[in-house]
Amino acid sequence: ECKFWGLGGDGTVGANKNSIKIIGDNTNKYVQAYFQYDSKKTGGVTISHLRFGDHPIRSPYYINMADFVACHNPSYITKGYKMVQAVKPGGVFLVNSQWTFEELERHLDAEAKRYIAKNRIRLVMINAIDLAQSIGMGKRTNTILQSAFFSLAKVMPEAEAIGHMKDAATSSYLKKGQDVVDMNHKAIDLGATAYEIVAIPESWATAEDKDRGKPVGGRPATVKMVEDILFPVARMDGDSLPVSAFVPHADGTFELGAAAYEKRGVAVNVPEWNENTCIQCNRCAYVCPHATIRPFALSGQELAAAPEATKSAPIKAGKGKGEYTYAMAISPLDCMGCGICVNICPTNSLTMMSLESQGAQQAVFNYMVSEVAEKKELQDNKTVKGSQFKQPMLEFSGSCAGCAETSYARLITQIYGDHMIISNATGCSSIWGGPAATSPYTVNKEGKGPAWVNSLFEDNAEHGLGIYLGQKKLRDDLAEKVKILAEGADAETAEAARAYLDTYCDGGANQAAASRLIETLEKNPSCDICREILSGKDYLNKKSVWIMGGDGWAFDIGYGGLDHVLASGEDVNVFVFNTEVYSNTGGQASKASNIGQVAQFAAAGKEIKSKSLAELAMTYGYVYVAQVAMGANLEQTLKAINEAEAYPGPSLIIAYSPCEMHSIKGGMVNCQVEMKKAVECGYWNLFRFNPALESPFTLDSKEPVGGYQDFLMNEARYSRLTMEFPERAETLFTAAEENAKARYDHLVKLKKLYE
Amino acid sequence: ECKFWGLGGDGTVGANKNSIKIIGDNTNKYVQAYFQYDSKKTGGVTISHLRFGDHPIRSPYYINMADFVACHNPSYITKGYKMVQAVKPGGVFLVNSQWTFEELERHLDAEAKRYIAKNRIRLVMINAIDLAQSIGMGKRTNTILQSAFFSLAKVMPEAEAIGHMKDAATSSYLKKGQDVVDMNHKAIDLGATAYEIVAIPESWATAEDKDRGKPVGGRPATVKMVEDILFPVARMDGDSLPVSAFVPHADGTFELGAAAYEKRGVAVNVPEWNENTCIQCNRCAYVCPHATIRPFALSGQELAAAPEATKSAPIKAGKGKGEYTYAMAISPLDCMGCGICVNICPTNSLTMMSLESQGAQQAVFNYMVSEVAEKKELQDNKTVKGSQFKQPMLEFSGSCAGCAETSYARLITQIYGDHMIISNATGCSSIWGGPAATSPYTVNKEGKGPAWVNSLFEDNAEHGLGIYLGQKKLRDDLAEKVKILAEGADAETAEAARAYLDTYCDGGANQAAASRLIETLEKNPSCDICREILSGKDYLNKKSVWIMGGDGWAFDIGYGGLDHVLASGEDVNVFVFNTEVYSNTGGQASKASNIGQVAQFAAAGKEIKSKSLAELAMTYGYVYVAQVAMGANLEQTLKAINEAEAYPGPSLIIAYSPCEMHSIKGGMVNCQVEMKKAVECGYWNLFRFNPALESPFTLDSKEPVGGYQDFLMNEARYSRLTMEFPERAETLFTAAEENAKARYDHLVKLKKLYE
Ligand SMILES: Cc1ncc(C[n+]2csc(CCOP(=O)(O)OP(=O)(O)O)c2C)c(N)n1
Ligand SMILES: Cc1ncc(C[n+]2csc(CCOP(=O)(O)OP(=O)(O)O)c2C)c(N)n1
Ligand code: SF4
Ligand code: SF4
Ligand code: SF4
Ligand code: SF4
Ligand code: SF4
Ligand code: SF4
Repeated sequence: ECKFWGLGGDGTVGANKNSIKIIGDNTNKYVQAYFQYDSKKTGGVTISHLRFGDHPIRSPYYINMADFVACHNPSYITKGYKMVQAVKPGGVFLVNSQWTFEELERHLDAEAKRYIAKNRIRLVMINAIDLAQSIGMGKRTNTILQSAFFSLAKVMPEAEAIGHMKDAATSSYLKKGQDVVDMNHKAIDLGATAYEIVAIPESWATAEDKDRGKPVGGRPATVKMVEDILFPVARMDGDSLPVSAFVPHADGTFELGAAAYEKRGVAVNVPEWNENTCIQCNRCAYVCPHATIRPFALSGQELAAAPEATKSAPIKAGKGKGEYTYAMAISPLDCMGCGICVNICPTNSLTMMSLESQGAQQAVFNYMVSEVAEKKELQDNKTVKGSQFKQPMLEFSGSCAGCAETSYARLITQIYGDHMIISNATGCSSIWGGPAATSPYTVNKEGKGPAWVNSLFEDNAEHGLGIYLGQKKLRDDLAEKVKILAEGADAETAEAARAYLDTYCDGGANQAAASRLIETLEKNPSCDICREILSGKDYLNKKSVWIMGGDGWAFDIGYGGLDHVLASGEDVNVFVFNTEVYSNTGGQASKASNIGQVAQFAAAGKEIKSKSLAELAMTYGYVYVAQVAMGANLEQTLKAINEAEAYPGPSLIIAYSPCEMHSIKGGMVNCQVEMKKAVECGYWNLFRFNPALESPFTLDSKEPVGGYQDFLMNEARYSRLTMEFPERAETLFTAAEENAKARYDHLVKLKKLYE
Repeated sequence: ECKFWGLGGDGTVGANKNSIKIIGDNTNKYVQAYFQYDSKKTGGVTISHLRFGDHPIRSPYYINMADFVACHNPSYITKGYKMVQAVKPGGVFLVNSQWTFEELERHLDAEAKRYIAKNRIRLVMINAIDLAQSIGMGKRTNTILQSAFFSLAKVMPEAEAIGHMKDAATSSYLKKGQDVVDMNHKAIDLGATAYEIVAIPESWATAEDKDRGKPVGGRPATVKMVEDILFPVARMDGDSLPVSAFVPHADGTFELGAAAYEKRGVAVNVPEWNENTCIQCNRCAYVCPHATIRPFALSGQELAAAPEATKSAPIKAGKGKGEYTYAMAISPLDCMGCGICVNICPTNSLTMMSLESQGAQQAVFNYMVSEVAEKKELQDNKTVKGSQFKQPMLEFSGSCAGCAETSYARLITQIYGDHMIISNATGCSSIWGGPAATSPYTVNKEGKGPAWVNSLFEDNAEHGLGIYLGQKKLRDDLAEKVKILAEGADAETAEAARAYLDTYCDGGANQAAASRLIETLEKNPSCDICREILSGKDYLNKKSVWIMGGDGWAFDIGYGGLDHVLASGEDVNVFVFNTEVYSNTGGQASKASNIGQVAQFAAAGKEIKSKSLAELAMTYGYVYVAQVAMGANLEQTLKAINEAEAYPGPSLIIAYSPCEMHSIKGGMVNCQVEMKKAVECGYWNLFRFNPALESPFTLDSKEPVGGYQDFLMNEARYSRLTMEFPERAETLFTAAEENAKARYDHLVKLKKLYE
């Protein structure tokens, strides 16, 4: 019985599937494999449970005590996951890290040490990280670790195991070229020898527990939830929680902002900022999916009190110049290491450095977040730069590193987060958006943040409309009462009431007016109508209602309802994360999938072009519609978001969202760049249709510049087809390019039609 | 306890609701009313069950034995409904008819006569039909009959009852003008006196049963079903059927063509044809919802054998001239008396005459249908005239008189009925299309007819797609085998196989080729592959798959699925009966409802314009789309149907369908005229979008000529608003007209865009 702790996407699960196949096919043993996942997207914890033996296996459950446990990710040691405690006395515990033994000793907690010492665990260390790098395999450590497993577990003669692994690698990678095969063979050879069995110091038997430390503070209800639920869950020990732990959440409500307590530390490398070359454009923060790189403007006092490791520079231009100091804070333990910020930086002022090296920046980030005051005068919803001086109210989510969905959602929370309600369809966005008790949506210092709720997959639009209509009814009733005040009350109250009514439909302004009205009313404890209004004070200000979900929801399963909601004419905003595939369930084709795209249910490439949800919605004439792609045009995305919210009817934004499922060459670090390419070659088009304008249609994309086929070949969801069905690939890809051209021509015609 | 047999739409139910209110409000009596309906739309049977008494009523069921039973429709006597058998001894049986006593005696069956005589039933006759006509109330006999009821039942002093009825009439009709009020008061006065109590001849006590007569023949399974189920059900005696009667239909399949055995005889007047003035254009047949007026071309022999009452004229022009004799046959007992045929006739060659007067024409119709051979050379799917020489395979349905839905559906069956599958959403079309055991869809002489199935309301499109895909798979498999034959077999077989394969995608031609192939194969009993092909012979020929339903289905509840099916690119045809309202459930607003329209859930007029389902579908670019309105352009409708079927991808036809629910001035006789008006004023637009063409978009509507407001005022679904909310009506109707103009302009622009 063997257990392997991996990081989602690191190949551990795949390698184990391969191992169990080798054992099953080449020995007389019975085999079984279970794969356990947490709720994080890539970057989450995976545990592979492998059983094999001479007798039929009748254990339909996970492994409790194993002969062999491997920890493929050093951060799991730091976090104190109970891994070695599941090794049987005398068994093997394999740890992969870049650490020396002394470093390992420092990170390993006392309980683990005592267990190792008392149970004669054979502790084995390996540094597959540097090894993989050195032979050109980048982050792919799984082959090396698989080989180490076979060498240590002795399921079959080592030479035989190596032979089988090599054969498997040959058949898997031959398509990718002989050099890839060779690299894998090398990794297999290395893995079998590169580990080291460690002698256990006697002192470990009596190692003493250190205080684990409490969350540094925050809203008490959140802290309680974090301690009672999030921490055990985060340690992969959630199964031990008693039902009573959930009593405070019996109605399904969880506290916001818990993700900030996770500090997962899963990135290998994180960005380091060069304050000297930085031009303070805030683009890095604008694209960061995880809100882990954020600009702050510090007063002299704030700068003085900042931690030593703080880097900063005077504000170089524009507002705040001569007054504030600029600091780009990075949260190493929350950063996912996607590198997108580095990629977008126009001045190369960010460099990826090892997580270790950036340790001191955590305190800086924490200081900025908790101690540095907002500088309202620098904030501006309408500019890329200004928007980033606002607090993101979506941070540290469990999405994949580099996920575009989260970059969009984060941005929206910066603009409307303090008076925003989100109705979220099931899909990736419900997983990274709302894992119970790990909420990445958070609140500002006044305790205001997005109210987030996940509906069924199929009825999210209707669900969001219902939320909006409920709010509207409550507000309309309150407004009737405020009208009475505006006409009758004392000058101050009447003035506040009028200000409230004047801004009734403007989310931002009404927020402030409502606060003032509430303050004024609270001064009149004897006024009946004031009390009545105050009893509904949470409903006074205009909420920004956002209905969010993926293309599977919006284009397919939820489309009937979405159409109904758009047709209703009501003032809701719909935001579609278009990954062109059902991402959350492993990549089934949706109607947003495009010609030639390989997906589940479209193994030979989809034949039919993607549905134009935008154009469908435009036929109503009274629906605001936009297609955006952040990386292609940061400003246009922001413009669309602002226009959508301002438009007093239904709005629909369809946001192109590159995704892990696309298998982009080089990985998700290229997420934003890929958007740019998509738009430049005409794969995706940017436009806005604003019924409030005389000429409602604005085509924001330029005429495609070519490179369509290169674009396709840069993503394995397409290039795969060339390998598997070369002729069909050619036909489909030609059709795809022609279709893209025709689509652009059609948009140009639409522009004319709407002039 | 009182029971009233009425005809759906004749006002009996309304009058009884009114009566029970009068009794409840003005006496100390306890009251109860149940209303029982058959599955026919207007024109079906209604039974109102009224109870009142001095004690609380605790009878949650229909009335079995009543003190008073009224038969408001003479045809129920002719049909032998068991009405009087439910009158308690000594009770009253009121019969409304234009008959003399002698005529009544002739029509009443022996069982009823014996019951009347033996139970001292007081038989009362009234001729409310002529009375209503004489005082200008047209077909509205209900007020007269209500008054007769109060006079006979003596629930309260007669004068008092008359007072209450008059008050009720005043308050109901004042809006419609004083003359309408006066007319109703007159009817009330008349009703109280115009009846006559009849003396019962002694001979009735021993009246002898006549043989009821068997159905005149037909397919044995159908005849059995008709006798076992349809007849008892049609006599409103279905509750007496044992479960075993349904055993032959345990799988839910019913025989086609049963409606022909109903001979409901519900029309008061039916058309009479003038063979001399008729120009033989067949337009009357083309629009008839019930397939009860049909042209035939007779050979000399057929003419010679025709019943005496046959009217005919030589064929005046075109094919068949000099060879055949033309006869327009009318089925008086199936005709619903809507008058639409009369209205459309360009030469006034049809006149509405009393049902009685046309009795002899039934035999003529029956003769033509059963004995006159098809004249293939006169048939033409592409012309209005030629299409009508084909057999309608939807006839005598239970739709309202004049219903547009059935005119469209009937036409489609004439073109594709013999190789057609219909997947029907729930809605009016599932009620008139498929009441169990009363199937109006029928078969031709070869036993071929539309296979019809009703799906759930919401998933009809998917259901139809599934049917299509199933057929496709079966055919594709068979075609593989036929290909083998085409290459290897003897010359004749190979030739038949090739002919089959060459016409594989052409429904009409493939039908013939498949028949020939089957014939050829059946000559080769020893050939294995022939036998294999023959085992699937029903699946060989290309079926025409039609997915049908109302706008509630297509625009709203089933739209998500419809979109998915259209997007799929598969070769199915979708036909939407657009009544702009959920007709079947009493008129709820749908997204097809238009600005200012009064409907359930839109009591103050809908504010939002109708959804353009056509334009939504056009955005795909590969979906054939058409908007039609038969009465506005007979040829265009036919063209669209032909093009839709010919197009080798998904097709969508949206057919404007005036409906009882629209309350058109003058009634449904104006159904087709109303379509013409709708198109002329720009309320509805005709166009076709055929992706197979270079310039796919054809705008068939001319520029609107004005008269938009007149059009609205001609339908109470709009004019109502003017009475109830005059100001709002003005605003909405202005908006509606502007929207219609903008829509037409938009279509002109689309035409350009697609040139
Ligand atoms: C009715 C229904 N069908 C299927 C599912 C399973 N399911 C959950 S998420 C998901 C995919 C979501 O895809 P998409 O909407 O594209 O969002 P993404 O994950 O790509 O962000 C599916 C199929 C479900 N929850 N409900
Ligand atoms: C899911 C579902 N909702 C509601 C109904 C009830 N229902 C039956 S027919 C009908 C109305 C059909 O309207 P439409 O599609 O416009 O057809 P029409 O009757 O106008 O021809 C409704 C609401 C149903 N059968 N199923
Ligand atoms: S590497 Fe990725 S997650 Fe980390 S700060 Fe940069 S953009 Fe954010
Ligand atoms: S993107 Fe680069 S230049 Fe711009 S703020 Fe970030 S680090 Fe500075
Ligand atoms: S949308 Fe794609 S990148 Fe984002 S979390 Fe889902 S799978 Fe990962
Ligand atoms: S009156 Fe109506 S039902 Fe009768 S034949 Fe004419 S069109 Fe058909
Ligand atoms: S519409 Fe009139 S002219 Fe034409 S076939 Fe009918 S009866 Fe004759
Ligand atoms: S669609 Fe209208 S006219 Fe036709 S059967 Fe239904 S209610 Fe009657």
